[in-house]
Amino acid sequence: MQVVVTAVGPDNRGLADPIIHHLTGQGANIAEIQMYDHDELSLFAMLLRIDLPAESFAGLRPQLAEIGRLKRLSVRVWSPEERRQRPRLAICTTFRPEPALALLRAIRDGQIQADAAVMLGNRPHCRSLAEQFGVDWHSIGDDQGVADDEQLIALCDQYEIDYLILARYMRILSPASCWKYAGGRIINLHHGLLPSFPGMRPYHEAFASRMLTFGATCHFIVPELDAGNQIIYQSTFTVSHGMKLDDIIRRGQEDNEPHCLVEGVRRVVNREVQLHFHRVVAR
Amino acid sequence: MQVVVTAVGPDNRGLADPIIHHLTGQGANIAEIQMYDHDELSLFAMLLRIDLPAESFAGLRPQLAEIGRLKRLSVRVWSPEERRQRPRLAICTTFRPEPALALLRAIRDGQIQADAAVMLGNRPHCRSLAEQFGVDWHSIGDDQGVADDEQLIALCDQYEIDYLILARYMRILSPASCWKYAGGRIINLHHGLLPSFPGMRPYHEAFASRMLTFGATCHFIVPELDAGNQIIYQSTFTVSHGMKLDDIIRRGQEDNEPHCLVEGVRRVVNREVQLHFHRVVAR
Amino acid sequence: MQVVVTAVGPDNRGLADPIIHHLTGQGANIAEIQMYDHDELSLFAMLLRIDLPAESFAGLRPQLAEIGRLKRLSVRVWSPEERRQRPRLAICTTFRPEPALALLRAIRDGQIQADAAVMLGNRPHCRSLAEQFGVDWHSIGDDQGVADDEQLIALCDQYEIDYLILARYMRILSPASCWKYAGGRIINLHHGLLPSFPGMRPYHEAFASRMLTFGATCHFIVPELDAGNQIIYQSTFTVSHGMKLDDIIRRGQEDNEPHCLVEGVRRVVNREVQLHFHRVVAR
Amino acid sequence: MQVVVTAVGPDNRGLADPIIHHLTGQGANIAEIQMYDHDELSLFAMLLRIDLPAESFAGLRPQLAEIGRLKRLSVRVWSPEERRQRPRLAICTTFRPEPALALLRAIRDGQIQADAAVMLGNRPHCRSLAEQFGVDWHSIGDDQGVADDEQLIALCDQYEIDYLILARYMRILSPASCWKYAGGRIINLHHGLLPSFPGMRPYHEAFASRMLTFGATCHFIVPELDAGNQIIYQSTFTVSHGMKLDDIIRRGQEDNEPHCLVEGVRRVVNREVQLHFHRVVAR
Repeated sequence: MQVVVTAVGPDNRGLADPIIHHLTGQGANIAEIQMYDHDELSLFAMLLRIDLPAESFAGLRPQLAEIGRLKRLSVRVWSPEERRQRPRLAICTTFRPEPALALLRAIRDGQIQADAAVMLGNRPHCRSLAEQFGVDWHSIGDDQGVADDEQLIALCDQYEIDYLILARYMRILSPASCWKYAGGRIINLHHGLLPSFPGMRPYHEAFASRMLTFGATCHFIVPELDAGNQIIYQSTFTVSHGMKLDDIIRRGQEDNEPHCLVEGVRRVVNREVQLHFHRVVAR
Repeated sequence: MQVVVTAVGPDNRGLADPIIHHLTGQGANIAEIQMYDHDELSLFAMLLRIDLPAESFAGLRPQLAEIGRLKRLSVRVWSPEERRQRPRLAICTTFRPEPALALLRAIRDGQIQADAAVMLGNRPHCRSLAEQFGVDWHSIGDDQGVADDEQLIALCDQYEIDYLILARYMRILSPASCWKYAGGRIINLHHGLLPSFPGMRPYHEAFASRMLTFGATCHFIVPELDAGNQIIYQSTFTVSHGMKLDDIIRRGQEDNEPHCLVEGVRRVVNREVQLHFHRVVAR
Repeated sequence: MQVVVTAVGPDNRGLADPIIHHLTGQGANIAEIQMYDHDELSLFAMLLRIDLPAESFAGLRPQLAEIGRLKRLSVRVWSPEERRQRPRLAICTTFRPEPALALLRAIRDGQIQADAAVMLGNRPHCRSLAEQFGVDWHSIGDDQGVADDEQLIALCDQYEIDYLILARYMRILSPASCWKYAGGRIINLHHGLLPSFPGMRPYHEAFASRMLTFGATCHFIVPELDAGNQIIYQSTFTVSHGMKLDDIIRRGQEDNEPHCLVEGVRRVVNREVQLHFHRVVAR
Repeated sequence: MQVVVTAVGPDNRGLADPIIHHLTGQGANIAEIQMYDHDELSLFAMLLRIDLPAESFAGLRPQLAEIGRLKRLSVRVWSPEERRQRPRLAICTTFRPEPALALLRAIRDGQIQADAAVMLGNRPHCRSLAEQFGVDWHSIGDDQGVADDEQLIALCDQYEIDYLILARYMRILSPASCWKYAGGRIINLHHGLLPSFPGMRPYHEAFASRMLTFGATCHFIVPELDAGNQIIYQSTFTVSHGMKLDDIIRRGQEDNEPHCLVEGVRRVVNREVQLHFHRVVAR
C-alpha cells in the first residue's frame, strides 16, 4: 500500500530518526525520502513515500500522531489508496468563481469522481457558489483578505481532505502548509503557461511579449522548486492581432482556465498521473 | 502608395542624405525611418516607409538604383501594393520538407493567393519537392551546407520576390541580407513558442522544462531585435505525460509546423497584418 | 558641430518631413535618425544626430522652435559641444541622499567639471542637501510622491540643462520625457548589476539567488530598449556568507552606489563615452 | 562526528532501507537525507549527513562497503573531520593551466593547507604542470578529449581524495559521479558570474550584453540543482569601453579566475563554509 508521511518541525535534529525508525519497524519499504530546511524560518520538513503492508496502515496514523506529540512534530499520514473511489476535495478561492464553478459542475455531472468536501475563501466572493452547490463554506481571510494558513490546514485536516484545489486562490501558501500536504495533494491553477510566465500577471506579460498564444497550467505545488516540473495539464488558445487584453483575459478566465483546472483535477483524481521525486509521471 | 526603401552600405556617413533628399523631392511623405549600425561589421542600414504619389513609383526604382550606384549603396524599392493580387514568394528550405510542402499545396489549392516563384535550399533535400510542383530550384549551399547569402539575395532580386519564406531553413540570414529585404518581407517559421523557446532545439527545451504544450511561431525577421514583437501567428498542441520526445517532435513537424507556416503566410499575403515600427499590427 | 535634435508629437504623419527638410537645407549631414511610435500612447518621437556647420547652430534652435510651434511638435536642439567646459546638470532624487551627495561633493572638489544647476525631488528628503550646497531645489512631487513629469522637463528646459542625473530617483520617466532629452542626456543609477538584475529590488534578488557579488550600474536611458546596451559604468563588491541583507544594502547604498554614479557622470561630462546608435562607445 | 554517506544504484527500491537501518543501528543521528532519481538513466542516488559516535567511524566504511557489495550499490563514507589538518585534493584540468597553477602555488606556499594528491586531465595540456610540482598525473581522456568518468572516480577513490577541484575542467561530470562525491566535495570554477551567465561562453555572453563587469564563480556542484545556491566565492573585474573581448578574456583567465579558485578552495579547506541542505552556509 502506497503511503505518504509528512512531518514538519522547528529543527532538523530529531525530525527524521523517530519516524524512520517507526516506519521501518512496521515493515515499510522506503521509496522516497526528501528533507527540506528553511533556516530563515526555523522550519524543517520531511516527506516519505513508503510501501506498507496494508494491515499496518490502520494503526499508523495514531502511532505517528503520538510520535508527533512527543517530538513536537506536525505529522500526517495519507494514502491515495485509502479513499480511492471518491477522494475528498477542498476548493480554495479568492475572487474569480469560474474555475471553482466548473469544478463543482464537473463533480455534479460525474465527470470528476470526487466529493467537494469544503470550500474555503480568503475573500467572500465565492460563498454563494458554495451555497448553490450545498458545500460547506469557511472564510479563512480577514478584512484585508489576509489568509489564515493555519486555519486553512486545520480545516483540511478536520474535513479529511485528500486534495487541496487552489482554484484561482490568489494567496501564497506558506512553506509549512505546503509540506504538511506534500506528496501531490495540492493542485494549483496558474493562469499562464509555465514555466514561461510564472508571475502574478501572466496575461499581461504574454501580451507585452506580443504573444498570440495564451494558456493556463494546472500543477502540483512543491514549494522549494519552480513549478516547471510539476505540470499536470496545460491548455492554450490563440488570438488575432488587435484583440484587446481585456478580451483575451476574459476568454482565458471564462473558458480556458476552467477547462484547464477540471481536466487537471480529473487526471489526479483518476490517478492517471502522480508525483514521483518531484516530477509528474504517468501511472 | 505605400513604399519601402532599404539601403545598405559600409558606413553611416552619406547613407541617409542622398536618398532622403531624393524621396522628399519626389513628394514622398516619410512615415518611418530606421537606421542601424553594426560597427563590428562596418555595415549600416536604413529603412524608409513612405507614402508616394502613385505616378512617382515607376521612376523611383531606377532613380534610386542610380543613387545607389554612385554612392556604393545597395538600394531596394518595394511596394506591397505593386503586385497586390499575386505576390511572388521564394521558399527557402534545408532538410525538412513538410512546411514547404504544405505551403505549395496551399498555393496550388488557392488557399494562399501567391506564386511560388522559386525554391532555394542550402541542402538538396527539398529539390524533388520543387520538381513535383514545377517550381524553379536553386541550390545556395556548398557541400557542407554553408549557404551563400549573396547568391540567395541575388536570386530573390532576379526572381522579383515579394516575400522570402524561411520554411525550416536552418541557417541564419546575415544582417546585411535581412536589411536588404527589411520592412516585413522575410517570414520565418520557428519550431517553438516565441519568445519562451528561441533556441535551435525548442522541442528539447520545452520537453526538458516538462511542458505539456508545444508550439510553433511564424514571425517576421528583424535582425536587431528579438523576434517577440514580430509574431504573425502561433499554434500549439498539448501532449500527455509519458509521450516520448521523438513522437512529440514528429507531431510538431508533420502537423503543427506546416499549419503554422501556411496560416502565417496567408495572413501576410492577404495583408491582414503588416509591420509597423517593428511591430506586427492588424491592418 | 555635432548636434542632437529631438521631436515629440502626437502622430507619425508630418513628424519627420519638416524637420528633416529644414536640417538638410541648412547643410546638415545626417549621422543617425531614429523614429519611435507608441501607438497605445499616441506618441511619436524622432531623434536626429547631425553634423552641422558651426555657424548654423545659433539660428537652429529658434528656427526649429518655430517649426515645432506650427506643427505642434515638442522640438529640442542640443549640442554636447555647446557648453563643453562646464555642462549643466539637473540632479533628480527621491529618498536616498548618498549618490546625490557624492555627486555634489565631486563637483565641489573639481573631480567632475560640471555645474549642479538644479536639484529636483518627488519627495522632500534631499532638499536640505540642495540648501547645503547652494543649489536651487524644486519639488516635482505631490503628497503621495507622484511626480509631475511635465514640470520636470519644463524645469530642465528653463535651467538649460545638459544632462539629467537620476540619483536613485525612484520614478519611471514617461517615454515622452525620455525622448525629449534623448541622445545620451539622461543618466540613471541602477542599484543592481544590469542586465542580470533589472527590477526594483536588485539587492533582494541577487541575495535570493545567493550571489556573493553585488553591484550598481550607471547607464543612459533609452526607453524603448532594455538598458543592457547603454551601460556607462559598473562597480561591484563581494561579501561573505552570512552577511545580512540589510548590511549588504547599507554597504551598497553608502559606498558602492555613490562611487558608481560619480564615476559614470565623470565619464559622460568628460565625454569619454557617448551614445551612438543606442550603444555606448568610447570616443 | 559529522559523516557523509552516499549511495548510487540502479533503482530506488532497496536503496535506502539497508543503509538507513545500519546507520541508525550504529547510533547515528540523521541530520539530512536526500534521494534523487534519474528515471531516464535508471540511476538512483542517496545522500545522508549523519552525526556518528566517533568510535563507530572506523568500522563504518567496511560495513557499508559490504552492504554495497550485497545490494549492488556504490557506497562511499566520508568525514570532513577525518583528515582535517591536510585534506587531499584531486585537481582536474583540460586546457587552461592558470587556475591549477595558482592552486599548486598556494598549496606550496602554505596559503592552502591541503595536499595536491593527484592531477587528472582529459587533455594532456597540464601534464607538465603536474611534473613541475611533483604531483601524480593521470590522463582520463581519449584522443578526442572524451573523459572516462568511471576512471576519474576510481582514481579519486584510489588516492583517497577529500575534494575534487575542477580547475577549468571543461567536461560535465555525469550525475552518477557527482552523487558519488556529493555533500560538498566537488568544487568547480566557472568562468562567469552565476547565476546570470551559466553557459559555456560566459565572457562572450556578458560582452554581448555589453556589460563592463566580468567575473568568476567558485561553487559546489550539486547536479540536480542550478548552481546559484552553491556559490562559495565570486570575484569580478571591471573594464572600460572599447576593451576587446580577447583582452577581457585574457585578464579574466590570467588574473581573476586563478584568484577566484584559490580563495574558494581555501574557504572549503579551512572549513569556513559548508554545504547544508544544498546551500552554502558559514560555519
